[in-house]
Amino acid sequence: MINVGVIGVGYWGPNMIRNFSASRRTNMKICCDIREERLNFVKAQYPAVEVTTECNKVIKNPDIELVAVCTPVYTHFQLAKAALEAGKHVLIEKPMTASSQEADQLLELAEKKNLKIFVDHTFLFTGAVRKIKELIKSGEIGELYYFDSVRVNLGLFQHDVNVLWDLAPHDISIMHYVLESIPTSVVATGADHTGSGLENVAYLTVFFPNNMIAHFHTNWLSPVKVRETLIAGSKKMIVWDDNQPSEKVRIYDKGIEVVKTADDVYNMLIQYRTGDMYCPKIDGREAIGVEVENIADCLEGKAAAVADGKAGRLVVRILEAAQESIKNRGKEVMI
Amino acid sequence: MINVGVIGVGYWGPNMIRNFSASRRTNMKICCDIREERLNFVKAQYPAVEVTTECNKVIKNPDIELVAVCTPVYTHFQLAKAALEAGKHVLIEKPMTASSQEADQLLELAEKKNLKIFVDHTFLFTGAVRKIKELIKSGEIGELYYFDSVRVNLGLFQHDVNVLWDLAPHDISIMHYVLESIPTSVVATGADHTGSGLENVAYLTVFFPNNMIAHFHTNWLSPVKVRETLIAGSKKMIVWDDNQPSEKVRIYDKGIEVVKTADDVYNMLIQYRTGDMYCPKIDGREAIGVEVENIADCLEGKAAAVADGKAGRLVVRILEAAQESIKNRGKEVMI
Amino acid sequence: MINVGVIGVGYWGPNMIRNFSASRRTNMKICCDIREERLNFVKAQYPAVEVTTECNKVIKNPDIELVAVCTPVYTHFQLAKAALEAGKHVLIEKPMTASSQEADQLLELAEKKNLKIFVDHTFLFTGAVRKIKELIKSGEIGELYYFDSVRVNLGLFQHDVNVLWDLAPHDISIMHYVLESIPTSVVATGADHTGSGLENVAYLTVFFPNNMIAHFHTNWLSPVKVRETLIAGSKKMIVWDDNQPSEKVRIYDKGIEVVKTADDVYNMLIQYRTGDMYCPKIDGREAIGVEVENIADCLEGKAAAVADGKAGRLVVRILEAAQESIKNRGKEVMI
Amino acid sequence: MINVGVIGVGYWGPNMIRNFSASRRTNMKICCDIREERLNFVKAQYPAVEVTTECNKVIKNPDIELVAVCTPVYTHFQLAKAALEAGKHVLIEKPMTASSQEADQLLELAEKKNLKIFVDHTFLFTGAVRKIKELIKSGEIGELYYFDSVRVNLGLFQHDVNVLWDLAPHDISIMHYVLESIPTSVVATGADHTGSGLENVAYLTVFFPNNMIAHFHTNWLSPVKVRETLIAGSKKMIVWDDNQPSEKVRIYDKGIEVVKTADDVYNMLIQYRTGDMYCPKIDGREAIGVEVENIADCLEGKAAAVADGKAGRLVVRILEAAQESIKNRGKEVMI
Repeated sequence: MINVGVIGVGYWGPNMIRNFSASRRTNMKICCDIREERLNFVKAQYPAVEVTTECNKVIKNPDIELVAVCTPVYTHFQLAKAALEAGKHVLIEKPMTASSQEADQLLELAEKKNLKIFVDHTFLFTGAVRKIKELIKSGEIGELYYFDSVRVNLGLFQHDVNVLWDLAPHDISIMHYVLESIPTSVVATGADHTGSGLENVAYLTVFFPNNMIAHFHTNWLSPVKVRETLIAGSKKMIVWDDNQPSEKVRIYDKGIEVVKTADDVYNMLIQYRTGDMYCPKIDGREAIGVEVENIADCLEGKAAAVADGKAGRLVVRILEAAQESIKNRGKEVMI
Repeated sequence: MINVGVIGVGYWGPNMIRNFSASRRTNMKICCDIREERLNFVKAQYPAVEVTTECNKVIKNPDIELVAVCTPVYTHFQLAKAALEAGKHVLIEKPMTASSQEADQLLELAEKKNLKIFVDHTFLFTGAVRKIKELIKSGEIGELYYFDSVRVNLGLFQHDVNVLWDLAPHDISIMHYVLESIPTSVVATGADHTGSGLENVAYLTVFFPNNMIAHFHTNWLSPVKVRETLIAGSKKMIVWDDNQPSEKVRIYDKGIEVVKTADDVYNMLIQYRTGDMYCPKIDGREAIGVEVENIADCLEGKAAAVADGKAGRLVVRILEAAQESIKNRGKEVMI
Repeated sequence: MINVGVIGVGYWGPNMIRNFSASRRTNMKICCDIREERLNFVKAQYPAVEVTTECNKVIKNPDIELVAVCTPVYTHFQLAKAALEAGKHVLIEKPMTASSQEADQLLELAEKKNLKIFVDHTFLFTGAVRKIKELIKSGEIGELYYFDSVRVNLGLFQHDVNVLWDLAPHDISIMHYVLESIPTSVVATGADHTGSGLENVAYLTVFFPNNMIAHFHTNWLSPVKVRETLIAGSKKMIVWDDNQPSEKVRIYDKGIEVVKTADDVYNMLIQYRTGDMYCPKIDGREAIGVEVENIADCLEGKAAAVADGKAGRLVVRILEAAQESIKNRGKEVMI
Repeated sequence: MINVGVIGVGYWGPNMIRNFSASRRTNMKICCDIREERLNFVKAQYPAVEVTTECNKVIKNPDIELVAVCTPVYTHFQLAKAALEAGKHVLIEKPMTASSQEADQLLELAEKKNLKIFVDHTFLFTGAVRKIKELIKSGEIGELYYFDSVRVNLGLFQHDVNVLWDLAPHDISIMHYVLESIPTSVVATGADHTGSGLENVAYLTVFFPNNMIAHFHTNWLSPVKVRETLIAGSKKMIVWDDNQPSEKVRIYDKGIEVVKTADDVYNMLIQYRTGDMYCPKIDGREAIGVEVENIADCLEGKAAAVADGKAGRLVVRILEAAQESIKNRGKEVMI
C-alpha cells in the first residue's frame, strides 16, 4: 500500500481523497488545508484520514510516499519542490506549474532524487480518450491531419488565470497524449470583456513539424456548453462529444483520397469516400480511479506514467507561449 | 420590370435565374454560358429566356439594366467592369473580386457612372440573419462581445481558392451585417493536407476597435457538417444553428455582470445570470427571393442595398488579409 | 419501354410523373386530372407528356401498359377496377383502397386477368428501410421482439380520413415488409379534438402469433416532428430516425439474455449486454426511382413486386380493423 | 423538528435518508433494514442515525412522527397499516400499494386516525413538472387535448412487477397532477419476451370525460433512453424532454384553430398557427428536498400535500385496471 498525503481540499482535492481511499493499492493517510471547515468536511466523510493545517506535516511525514498537490497553480512549484526535496513522489494538479521554468526545476530535482512526478491530466484516463488513443495507435485513423477542440460554457471566471490556463490544459494534454508529437510553435488570440486583464475567450493554433495542426477554442462566456473534439486522419475521422450521455466517440469511415497524376499536379483529383460510422463501447470507470491504478503501477515499476512531468511541462510551455502570442496579437511563438 | 441578364449557369446561376423568373418586378431576359449543355438546360426549364455563348450579348444588350455575374471568382472583375462600363448595374456572386484592389476599381467606376453594385451575400437575406440583425439593432443583446462561427463539413475541394475564400465569405458578410462595425486587423492560421498549396482547414480571428472579437473556423475535411454561430452580448446571447430544420435561432437570457467595487478592482465580482431561452419564429421565404426584392427596391430608389459593393469590398479585404496572415503563420495584418 | 399513364396530378402525382419520365425503362406517356391548371403545370414541365381531363383516355388507351392511380382514396377502387378490366397493370397510391373488401375484389380481378397490382408504399424503397430489411433478413437482429413507430407533427388535417389512415400506412407497410409476418389482431385508441369525427391522434397495437408486438403512434397535433422507429430483437436493436440528415439508421449491439435455471423459473437471470453501435452507409437514391425500377423488373419478369396488392390489402385490413377498434374503445379486432 | 423513521435502505431509501438529514425541519432519527450491510452503510455515512433490523422499533417508536416506507411494493400495505395504527403519519414509496383495495383501507384508516398519507411521487417536486403545472394552471396552454409520455430504456427487469408498475407510476402521477382530472377508463396492451409472465413493453391509453386522452409507452427493452412527454392544448403545446441537461421544458406557440361555418360543418376550416418557442428557466433544486419541505409544511398545517393518499390510490387503480386490460387484450376497463 502506497501511503498518500493530499495538500489542498478545495474543488478537486475531495475527488482525489475519495479515489485514494477507494483503491486497495493506496492508503489515504493524511490531508492538509489551511481552512478548518474543509478539514471538518474530510473528517466527517473519512474518519480514518488524519487532517492538518500545516503542509509540512504532510510533506515531511516519514510515512508518506506520494504527495498530491491540489492547491492553486501559483503554489504548485513551492509545494512540489518541498515534497521532492523531502524525498516524496508528487502528483500535481493541472496545470503543473505557473511557468515552464518552474517545471524544468521540478523535473531536474525529481531526476536527481530519482523520484516520480505525476501530473493530474485526468482526462487521459477516461474511457473515451483511452479509446481514441488506441484507435490512433492501431493505425485505423491513418496519418493525422488535425485536432480541433471546443470547450466552452458560461463558466466560472477565475481571478488568477485566463480562460486558456483554466480550460485548455485538458485538451492540450489530450492532444499530446493521442498525437504523440511535439509541436513547434503556437499562434493565439483572445479577448477580455470584463476589464480584468484576463481573457475570457481565447483561440489557440498549435503547429507541428509536418502539416498537422491543432486548434483550441476556450470560452467562459458561451450560452451553451460544448465539449467537442474533431480528429481527422487520412483514413478515418473521429468526433468526440463529451456532452453526450452515451455514444461519446464516433468514428467515421470518411475521408478524401488525393489522386496525383504524373504530369499534372494542378489537376490532381480529390475523391470523397464515405462509409459506415460506429461508436465503440467505452469503458465507464471513473477516470481518477484508473489514474490511481496507473500511479500505483508506476511506483511499483510495472508501467510507465501516463501523465508524467515531461508531459506536464509541455502543457505549461504551450500555455505560456500562447499567453505571449495573445499579448502580441497572434505573433508566432516557438515552443 | 427590371430586365436582367445572367452570366454563368454553373452551380449558383440557376438559382438566380429561377428567382429572377419568379419575381414580378424583374424580367429574366437573357443568360450566357460558354457550355452549350448549360444553355440547353436553361432553355428546357425557361423557354422564354434567351441564351447565348457570348457574354457581350448580355453586357452590351441595350434592354438589360442589371447584369448578374455568376462565374468563377477570377473572372468577376473583368465581367463586372465591362458591365459597368456598358452602363449596367451589376450583381456579383460572392466573393466580389479576387482582390481588394479590383474591388476598389469597381467601386470607383460604379460611382463615376452612378451605377449600383450588389454583392450576392445570400445569407443576409435569410430569415435567421434578418432576425439576428433585428435583435442586435433593438439593443436586446446589449453591447457585443464576440462573434464565433463554425462552418465545416466534408466539402467540395476547390481548385482555385482555399477553404477560407470558399466558405468564410458567408460568415464574414454576416458578421459585418449584424455587427455594423469595421475591423482593424486579422490573424489567421491554416493547413493544407493535399499538397495543393490551398488550405483545407483555416482559423481566422478578426479584431475590432473595442474588445469585440470575431472568429471563423472553416474546414473542408470534417466528418460532420456544422453551421453554428455564437454571438454574445452584455445582455443576452444568440446561438444560430443553421443545420436545425426548425428553431434555428435561440436567444439565451444568460450573461455575466461585472460588479466593480470602488477601491478594489482585483476583487471585482462577476455574477452569473441565467433566465429563459426562446426561439423566435423565423421568416421562411427563400433568401434569393428576398434579395431580388431588395435589388428591385434599391433600383427603384425605395431602399438602400443590403449588400452593396462596399460590403463586398470589406469581405474581400478581410479574406486577402487573412490569406497573408496564414502565409506568415499568424502575423497580424491590418485591414 | 413500359408506357405509363398517370391519373391524378395532386400532391403526389408530380413525383410519379417525374420519376417515370426520368427512368429509361418507362415512357411517361399521358396523364389526367380534372383540373386544367394541374395539366398546364405538367405541360410546362414535361412538354412531351400528353394530358387529358378524361380518365378513360388513359384507362382505355391501347398504348398504355401501366396505370398509376394518384387520386383520393375513395376513388382508388373504381379507377383501378376500370384499369384492370381494360387489361392494364396498376400502381395505386397508398392506402390501396377504402376497404379490404374493395382490395379483395381488385386482387381477384387482377388474378383472373393475369395483371399486376403495385401499391405505392414508397418508404419500402428508401435506403433506410432496405437496409433494415437486409439486417433483419441476415439474422443479425435475431428473433424479433417489437416494432415501435412514432410519426407525429403539426400536420395537414385531412377532411376524409383520420390520422391513422393518413399517416400509418407508411409504417404499417414498413412493418409488414421487414417483419414478414401476418398479424392476428389489433387494438387501437384515439381522440378527435376538432369535432370532425375524425381522430387527430391515434395509437395502434398490432399483435402477432408469437410474442412479437407492434405499436404505432400517429398524431397531427404535435409541436415537434418525430419520425422514429425502434425495432428490437434478441441479438441487436435498431433505431431509425428519419428526421436525421445523416446516420438515420443506428444498430445497437445491446440486449438481454435470459438465463433459465432448470429447477427454478422464478429466479431466472436477465443479463444485460451492451456493445458498439454503428450506422451503416445508406443508399441515398430517391425512393420512387428505386420503386420504378422494381416495377419495371417485375413487369419484365425479372423480380417479384416489393409492394404488391396483397401487401396493400393487408395494410388496408389493419387500418379498417384499427378504425373499428377505435370506435369500440380498444376492443380487440381480429385481422 | 419532525422525527422521521425510514424502513428499507435499498435503492431509494438512501436518498430519503440523505434529504431528511439535510432538512432543518426534519430529524432523521432511525432507520431499519433486515440486511446488516445496509445498516453499516448508513452508520458510516450518518453516524447520528440509529439503525435496527426490526421494523417495530421504528413503527412503535414513541419519538417518531413520520414513517417512510421504502420497501418492495408488496410490503407497503402491512407496514403502512402498522405505522398508521401506531399513530404515525406515513410516506410511502410509489406505487402506494399492490392494489386499490389496500389503498382504500389505508385511506380509511388514516382518516379515522386523523393522520396523513404521503406518496413518494418524486417527479411532482421537480422544477420541470412544477413549471408545467404552473403553465397549465395559468391557462397559457388552453383547453387540454392530450398527454403523451414515453419512458423507455434498457432497464432493470423487475422480478415482481411488470414494466408498467415499474415505470408508469411516475408518468401517471404527473398526468394526474398537471391535468387535475379524473379518468374514466383505460385500454392497455403489452408483451413479455422473457417468458416471465411480466410484460417488458406496455402501452396504456387513459380516457377522460371530455375528449382529452393520455397515453403511456413504457419499455425495459429499448436501446435508447427516452423520457419525453408531449402535452397539447388549444393554445400552446409543451414538450418535456427530461434527458436534456438543460432546456428540458419547451413551450411552443403552435396549434390549430377550428373555424366552423354556420351551415356547413363538413367544410370547417382548420388553420395552423405557429409562433415562437421558449424554454423557461427551471428550478434546479433536488426534488426530494422540495418534497420534504412540502411534507413538513403539511404536517405543520401550512400547506396541502402535493402527493397524498388519494393521488396514490388513483395511480394504483389505473395500474390495476391497465393490468386487467393487458391480460384481456385491450379490453376497456373502467376506473
